[in-house]
Amino acid sequence: MKKVSLFEEGKFGDKGMAKLLVHDSPYFKIINFNFKPGQELPVHAHDIEGQLSLTVLEGEGEFLGKDNASIPGKTGDILVCDIAEPHGFRAKTKVRLLVVIAPPI
Amino acid sequence: MKKVSLFEEGKFGDKGMAKLLVHDSPYFKIINFNFKPGQELPVHAHDIEGQLSLTVLEGEGEFLGKDNASIPGKTGDILVCDIAEPHGFRAKTKVRLLVVIAPPI
Repeated sequence: MKKVSLFEEGKFGDKGMAKLLVHDSPYFKIINFNFKPGQELPVHAHDIEGQLSLTVLEGEGEFLGKDNASIPGKTGDILVCDIAEPHGFRAKTKVRLLVVIAPPI
Repeated sequence: MKKVSLFEEGKFGDKGMAKLLVHDSPYFKIINFNFKPGQELPVHAHDIEGQLSLTVLEGEGEFLGKDNASIPGKTGDILVCDIAEPHGFRAKTKVRLLVVIAPPI
Protein backbone atom coordinates (compact mmCIF):
# COMPACT_ATOMS: atom_id res chain seq x y z
CA MET A 1 0.00 0.00 0.00
CA LYS A 2 1.18 3.46 -0.85
CA LYS A 3 -0.52 6.73 0.07
CA VAL A 4 0.16 10.11 -1.50
CA SER A 5 -1.41 13.35 -0.24
CA LEU A 6 -1.78 15.22 -3.52
CA PHE A 7 -2.94 18.47 -1.91
CA GLU A 8 0.31 18.57 0.07
CA GLU A 9 2.81 17.08 -2.36
CA GLY A 10 1.53 18.54 -5.63
CA LYS A 11 3.24 21.82 -6.52
CA PHE A 12 2.40 24.64 -8.93
CA GLY A 13 4.83 26.23 -11.38
CA ASP A 14 5.09 29.64 -12.97
CA LYS A 15 6.37 28.37 -16.30
CA GLY A 16 3.66 25.81 -16.98
CA MET A 17 1.68 23.01 -15.39
CA ALA A 18 3.51 21.08 -12.68
CA LYS A 19 3.68 17.29 -12.87
CA LEU A 20 3.83 14.76 -10.04
CA LEU A 21 4.27 11.09 -10.93
CA VAL A 22 2.14 9.30 -8.34
CA HIS A 23 2.45 5.71 -9.52
CA ASP A 24 3.78 3.67 -12.42
CA SER A 25 3.26 -0.07 -12.77
CA PRO A 26 2.47 -2.60 -15.50
CA TYR A 27 -1.22 -1.94 -14.77
CA PHE A 28 -1.58 1.82 -14.85
CA LYS A 29 0.23 5.11 -14.57
CA ILE A 30 -1.11 7.82 -12.26
CA ILE A 31 -0.03 11.44 -12.62
CA ASN A 32 -1.11 14.63 -10.90
CA PHE A 33 -1.00 17.77 -13.06
CA ASN A 34 -1.40 21.12 -11.34
CA PHE A 35 -2.24 24.29 -13.24
CA LYS A 36 -2.22 27.94 -12.41
CA PRO A 37 -5.01 29.95 -14.09
CA GLY A 38 -4.48 30.01 -17.87
CA GLN A 39 -2.00 27.13 -17.96
CA GLU A 40 -2.81 24.14 -20.13
CA LEU A 41 -2.04 20.58 -21.14
CA PRO A 42 -2.07 21.00 -24.92
CA VAL A 43 -4.25 18.70 -27.02
CA HIS A 44 -2.34 15.58 -27.99
CA ALA A 45 -2.85 11.86 -28.69
CA HIS A 46 -0.78 8.69 -28.85
CA ASP A 47 -1.45 6.04 -31.48
CA ILE A 48 -1.63 3.16 -29.03
CA GLU A 49 -4.22 0.97 -27.33
CA GLY A 50 -5.65 1.97 -23.98
CA GLN A 51 -7.71 4.61 -22.25
CA LEU A 52 -7.20 7.37 -19.73
CA SER A 53 -9.24 9.30 -17.22
CA LEU A 54 -8.87 12.97 -16.28
CA THR A 55 -10.42 13.91 -12.93
CA VAL A 56 -10.67 17.47 -11.66
CA LEU A 57 -9.80 17.28 -7.96
CA GLU A 58 -10.02 21.04 -7.47
CA GLY A 59 -10.80 24.07 -9.58
CA GLU A 60 -12.40 24.84 -12.88
CA GLY A 61 -11.40 24.76 -16.52
CA GLU A 62 -12.14 22.91 -19.74
CA PHE A 63 -11.35 19.53 -21.19
CA LEU A 64 -10.01 19.92 -24.70
CA GLY A 65 -10.56 17.64 -27.69
CA LYS A 66 -10.10 17.48 -31.44
CA ASP A 67 -11.24 20.31 -33.70
CA ASN A 68 -11.04 22.80 -30.83
CA ALA A 69 -13.69 20.95 -28.85
CA SER A 70 -14.12 22.22 -25.29
CA ILE A 71 -16.09 20.63 -22.44
CA PRO A 72 -16.43 22.48 -19.10
CA GLY A 73 -14.67 20.70 -16.21
CA LYS A 74 -15.00 21.51 -12.51
CA THR A 75 -14.28 19.79 -9.19
CA GLY A 76 -15.58 16.21 -9.33
CA ASP A 77 -15.83 16.02 -13.12
CA ILE A 78 -14.18 13.04 -14.80
CA LEU A 79 -13.48 12.59 -18.50
CA VAL A 80 -12.64 9.19 -19.99
CA CYS A 81 -11.24 8.76 -23.50
CA ASP A 82 -9.05 6.57 -25.66
CA ILE A 83 -5.33 7.34 -25.54
CA ALA A 84 -5.51 7.61 -29.34
CA GLU A 85 -8.20 10.31 -29.10
CA PRO A 86 -6.98 13.93 -28.92
CA HIS A 87 -7.31 15.26 -25.37
CA GLY A 88 -6.05 18.12 -23.23
CA PHE A 89 -7.03 20.55 -20.47
CA ARG A 90 -7.01 24.30 -19.92
CA ALA A 91 -7.34 25.84 -16.46
CA LYS A 92 -9.56 28.81 -15.70
CA THR A 93 -8.77 28.85 -11.98
CA LYS A 94 -6.02 27.05 -10.10
CA VAL A 95 -6.65 23.37 -10.93
CA ARG A 96 -5.51 20.00 -9.58
CA LEU A 97 -6.03 17.24 -12.17
CA LEU A 98 -5.58 13.50 -11.65
CA VAL A 99 -4.70 11.46 -14.73
CA VAL A 100 -4.86 7.65 -14.86
CA ILE A 101 -3.53 5.84 -17.95
CA ALA A 102 -4.15 2.11 -18.55
CA PRO A 103 -2.13 0.40 -19.67
CA PRO A 104 0.70 2.84 -18.83
CA ILE A 105 2.41 4.76 -21.64
CA MET B 1 -15.00 11.02 -24.85
CA LYS B 2 -17.34 10.67 -21.95
CA LYS B 3 -17.75 13.11 -19.07
CA VAL B 4 -19.42 12.37 -15.75
CA SER B 5 -20.02 15.02 -13.08
CA LEU B 6 -19.58 12.94 -9.94
CA PHE B 7 -20.62 15.70 -7.55
CA GLU B 8 -23.97 15.88 -9.34
CA GLU B 9 -24.59 12.26 -10.32
CA GLY B 10 -23.19 10.49 -7.26
CA LYS B 11 -25.87 9.82 -4.65
CA PHE B 12 -25.74 8.93 -0.95
CA GLY B 13 -27.75 6.16 0.70
CA ASP B 14 -29.04 5.60 4.21
CA LYS B 15 -28.48 1.84 4.20
CA GLY B 16 -24.83 1.86 3.18
CA MET B 17 -22.37 3.37 0.73
CA ALA B 18 -23.83 4.30 -2.65
CA LYS B 19 -22.13 3.06 -5.80
CA LEU B 20 -21.95 4.71 -9.24
CA LEU B 21 -20.32 2.78 -12.09
CA VAL B 22 -18.53 5.48 -14.05
CA HIS B 23 -16.74 3.38 -16.66
CA ASP B 24 -15.98 -0.23 -17.52
CA SER B 25 -13.70 -1.28 -20.36
CA PRO B 26 -11.02 -3.89 -21.05
CA TYR B 27 -8.50 -1.37 -19.67
CA PHE B 28 -9.93 -0.27 -16.33
CA LYS B 29 -13.06 -0.01 -14.26
CA ILE B 30 -13.94 3.28 -12.57
CA ILE B 31 -16.41 3.43 -9.70
CA ASN B 32 -17.55 6.25 -7.42
CA PHE B 33 -18.43 5.21 -3.87
CA ASN B 34 -20.21 7.75 -1.67
CA PHE B 35 -20.39 7.38 2.10
CA LYS B 36 -22.38 9.03 4.81
CA PRO B 37 -20.49 9.44 8.11
CA GLY B 38 -19.78 6.04 9.64
CA GLN B 39 -20.46 4.03 6.48
CA GLU B 40 -17.72 1.78 5.16
CA LEU B 41 -16.38 -0.37 2.38
CA PRO B 42 -15.37 -3.45 4.39
CA VAL B 43 -11.84 -4.80 4.05
CA HIS B 44 -11.67 -7.34 1.24
CA ALA B 45 -9.29 -8.68 -1.42
CA HIS B 46 -9.46 -10.63 -4.66
CA ASP B 47 -6.85 -13.24 -5.52
CA ILE B 48 -6.12 -11.85 -8.98
CA GLU B 49 -3.49 -9.79 -10.75
CA GLY B 50 -3.78 -6.03 -10.93
CA GLN B 51 -3.86 -2.89 -8.84
CA LEU B 52 -6.37 -0.28 -7.78
CA SER B 53 -6.36 3.30 -6.61
CA LEU B 54 -8.68 4.90 -4.05
CA THR B 55 -8.88 8.69 -4.25
CA VAL B 56 -10.73 10.84 -1.72
CA LEU B 57 -12.52 13.50 -3.78
CA GLU B 58 -14.25 15.01 -0.75
CA GLY B 59 -14.36 14.40 2.97
CA GLU B 60 -12.36 12.56 5.57
CA GLY B 61 -12.02 9.00 6.77
CA GLU B 62 -9.55 6.15 6.86
CA PHE B 63 -8.16 3.65 4.41
CA LEU B 64 -8.36 0.16 5.88
CA GLY B 65 -5.91 -2.71 5.44
CA LYS B 66 -5.06 -6.13 6.79
CA ASP B 67 -4.74 -6.76 10.53
CA ASN B 68 -6.97 -3.75 11.32
CA ALA B 69 -4.52 -1.34 9.70
CA SER B 70 -5.86 2.21 9.35
CA ILE B 71 -4.39 5.11 7.37
CA PRO B 72 -6.00 8.58 7.55
CA GLY B 73 -7.51 9.72 4.24
CA LYS B 74 -8.77 13.21 3.40
CA THR B 75 -9.59 15.22 0.27
CA GLY B 76 -6.80 14.75 -2.28
CA ASP B 77 -5.33 11.62 -0.69
CA ILE B 78 -4.79 8.64 -2.98
CA LEU B 79 -4.00 5.07 -1.96
CA VAL B 80 -2.62 2.53 -4.43
CA CYS B 81 -2.48 -1.21 -3.69
CA ASP B 82 -2.61 -4.63 -5.27
CA ILE B 83 -6.09 -6.08 -5.83
CA ALA B 84 -4.88 -9.12 -3.88
CA GLU B 85 -3.99 -6.94 -0.88
CA PRO B 86 -6.75 -6.41 1.72
CA HIS B 87 -8.23 -2.90 1.39
CA GLY B 88 -11.26 -0.92 2.46
CA PHE B 89 -12.44 2.50 3.60
CA ARG B 90 -14.39 3.95 6.51
CA ALA B 91 -15.91 7.44 6.39
CA LYS B 92 -15.71 9.90 9.27
CA THR B 93 -17.52 12.69 7.42
CA LYS B 94 -19.54 12.52 4.22
CA VAL B 95 -17.04 11.13 1.68
CA ARG B 96 -16.82 10.84 -2.11
CA LEU B 97 -14.30 8.18 -3.13
CA LEU B 98 -13.09 7.40 -6.66
CA VAL B 99 -11.89 3.85 -7.30
CA VAL B 100 -9.94 2.79 -10.40
CA ILE B 101 -9.23 -0.90 -10.98
CA ALA B 102 -6.79 -2.10 -13.65
CA PRO B 103 -7.31 -4.46 -15.25
CA PRO B 104 -11.05 -4.44 -14.43
CA ILE B 105 -12.48 -7.10 -12.14
